[in-house]
Amino acid sequence: MRSGKSGPRRGYGLSELGIVEEGAVLVKDGKIVVVGKRDEAIAAADVTLQRIDCNGGVVLPGFVDSHTHPAFMAPRLVDFEKRIAGATYEEISAAGGGIRSSVAQVRAATVPQISEKVLSGLKEMLRFGTTTVEAKSGYGLSVDAELNSVRAIKSAATRWPGQVSVTLLGAHVVPAEYKENPDAYVKIICEEMIPIIAWEGLAEWVDVFIEENAFTLEQAERIFAVAQAHKLGVRAHVHQFSRCELSRLQPFAPASLDHLDCVNDADMQLLAQQDTVATLLPAANYFLGHASYPPARKLIDAGVAVALATDYNPGTSPTCNMQFVLSVACTHMKMSPAEAIAAATINGAHALRLAESKGSIEAGKDADLALFDVEDYREIAYWFGANRCVMTMARGEIQFGRDRV
Amino acid sequence: MRSGKSGPRRGYGLSELGIVEEGAVLVKDGKIVVVGKRDEAIAAADVTLQRIDCNGGVVLPGFVDSHTHPAFMAPRLVDFEKRIAGATYEEISAAGGGIRSSVAQVRAATVPQISEKVLSGLKEMLRFGTTTVEAKSGYGLSVDAELNSVRAIKSAATRWPGQVSVTLLGAHVVPAEYKENPDAYVKIICEEMIPIIAWEGLAEWVDVFIEENAFTLEQAERIFAVAQAHKLGVRAHVHQFSRCELSRLQPFAPASLDHLDCVNDADMQLLAQQDTVATLLPAANYFLGHASYPPARKLIDAGVAVALATDYNPGTSPTCNMQFVLSVACTHMKMSPAEAIAAATINGAHALRLAESKGSIEAGKDADLALFDVEDYREIAYWFGANRCVMTMARGEIQFGRDRV
Repeated sequence: MRSGKSGPRRGYGLSELGIVEEGAVLVKDGKIVVVGKRDEAIAAADVTLQRIDCNGGVVLPGFVDSHTHPAFMAPRLVDFEKRIAGATYEEISAAGGGIRSSVAQVRAATVPQISEKVLSGLKEMLRFGTTTVEAKSGYGLSVDAELNSVRAIKSAATRWPGQVSVTLLGAHVVPAEYKENPDAYVKIICEEMIPIIAWEGLAEWVDVFIEENAFTLEQAERIFAVAQAHKLGVRAHVHQFSRCELSRLQPFAPASLDHLDCVNDADMQLLAQQDTVATLLPAANYFLGHASYPPARKLIDAGVAVALATDYNPGTSPTCNMQFVLSVACTHMKMSPAEAIAAATINGAHALRLAESKGSIEAGKDADLALFDVEDYREIAYWFGANRCVMTMARGEIQFGRDRV
Repeated sequence: MRSGKSGPRRGYGLSELGIVEEGAVLVKDGKIVVVGKRDEAIAAADVTLQRIDCNGGVVLPGFVDSHTHPAFMAPRLVDFEKRIAGATYEEISAAGGGIRSSVAQVRAATVPQISEKVLSGLKEMLRFGTTTVEAKSGYGLSVDAELNSVRAIKSAATRWPGQVSVTLLGAHVVPAEYKENPDAYVKIICEEMIPIIAWEGLAEWVDVFIEENAFTLEQAERIFAVAQAHKLGVRAHVHQFSRCELSRLQPFAPASLDHLDCVNDADMQLLAQQDTVATLLPAANYFLGHASYPPARKLIDAGVAVALATDYNPGTSPTCNMQFVLSVACTHMKMSPAEAIAAATINGAHALRLAESKGSIEAGKDADLALFDVEDYREIAYWFGANRCVMTMARGEIQFGRDRV
């Protein structure tokens, strides 16, 4: 996989995987030293090698899952069952489900308790081949509970061998106690959450869910201005169910805009001219039973840089498996297997501004690799509902599956 | 899980799982002896027990996957990639894909080679919690290659601890060499394949793909009459893309009619009065990128006995994972998790006329069990794209995951 250090992959560039057959990767001190044909790589080694035979399988860069919400305590089975039965959001909420149930659980939990749940999700991701993860808070919705959530993510990250990029999503939804005065909650995000997060170095990103029933574009602008003043990066949930004026987010140079189900032609022209990555989350559409998916084909053809992520969360996307995301991207968004893989690796790295060290197998980058027991990379998206990853390496160390190699 | 020995589950009966909390299953000589509360089950034991602690997980009857096509040699990656790109069936075929590529590979293979592929699929199914499988031939399409396929399935079955129900699907599509004279091929099925299969005891079932571009209802009637005369059971692929007159199949008392995407009200009234199971295969709809799925809700509400199966095959459903089928049944066909589980176990057993020994956890039945590391059965359908099965037992023997228990 070549990186495209010049920026995220677009258009035809998205499908150029730079496959090396009969290849080898030389790793030293956690970094990739040489990538190439097996014989050449071995000849380049200046020390005795510890060899790992990949048995003819396919080696990819570890997946970069650039949009997840792992700081939750329990599955939302009430939502799941009630939604299937056709219940409204209000009925689900009355039955004890909905995001408020997740919020109540996180507010009642300690940092170590939340951290265990986050770590459990991260460990599962590793088994599916993911080595870099963006992880959001957002089920706390109070200063204490949001800080607890980002601290829990930070703590889990220190015990996980991959890399975690932390995001404050205090602006996930307006908490019940501020329903009548959402601006007061926005003020708390701006004047308390963000300054503390920045001061203590607890997160790299600030995210806002811009949507009817969540936050307005005006509120997002206020939050992002504060984030920028505190030198935090900006990313946003946009266009999942309704549209907003994307051009107004331009001044904040968001690294990624995520969901984009109802993007239009003007938005696409705008995005095509920017380094902002369009992160598509089709597993949520799958789980919600939608018949339609984000318009990946149109976005790619318009020259927008597209990434794929799981959206791992208890309400709308309870999956850690990037291989399933590849499947749904191919079958339902008509991305080619090559495009889907690039979107799930190098463009995910760009969406996190980590492309210098993550997302491709190149000399100088971190040795984050995933081995799949398939003969052809296309099989990873083809055998759906399965886990074909048999080994994951993070920073040069095998983290999962050594016995199966 | 209670069985309903009186026939397949229908209507509200489909969701009655008969859950036992804090339960235990007493197994002896491969059979279930006692099912009930842990203390009662232990008290009922008359010998020293070997105990398996399920750690609070959920135990289900092993899945009954009542519709699979495992006798193929290779994935169909050309079809996969070309279909995503919008290619027609003709273009896929010209590029070396399509069912003809599978047929050419099976015709060129030996029985042991085909059998290894079948066994590899069966072993993967076991890891996902499946213990009973219906397996069809259908990529041979000549007397020799169809016989090789059923022999390969039989051979794999002897090396697999679960139970395999074998089906002759000589009538899958008309082979190229009979394109101009399909009736001549039907004659070969009737006069050569079926008599040999029956004489040698190689299969229990005869299946016909009734569809435009496959076989007509008249041809199916001819084939089924011969099957019946040879005391073989009858099942059919119907209504996947176009309708046929289901009432004309009634005289053959099919154990199952499968797909049923375009079933209508009259069909449903007919099916509701019969023991014929409607086997739905939504993983194929998922993989083909369809926005619509078989009308499970209407079928259940009309009183039709519904089963779920993977349709495991290289062209339209490359998955062995019944847990994924539960997920898609819930999210896209609006079956409740309980209905989906009953459809994937006891009604699958009815679809194979094996409900006396398979499909539920009841005294006297085979000890075919699957253990899942979830606290609530609904999680098995909820955590999609994953494998939550941590142990599978077939006929009282642990076949997978002992170390994880």
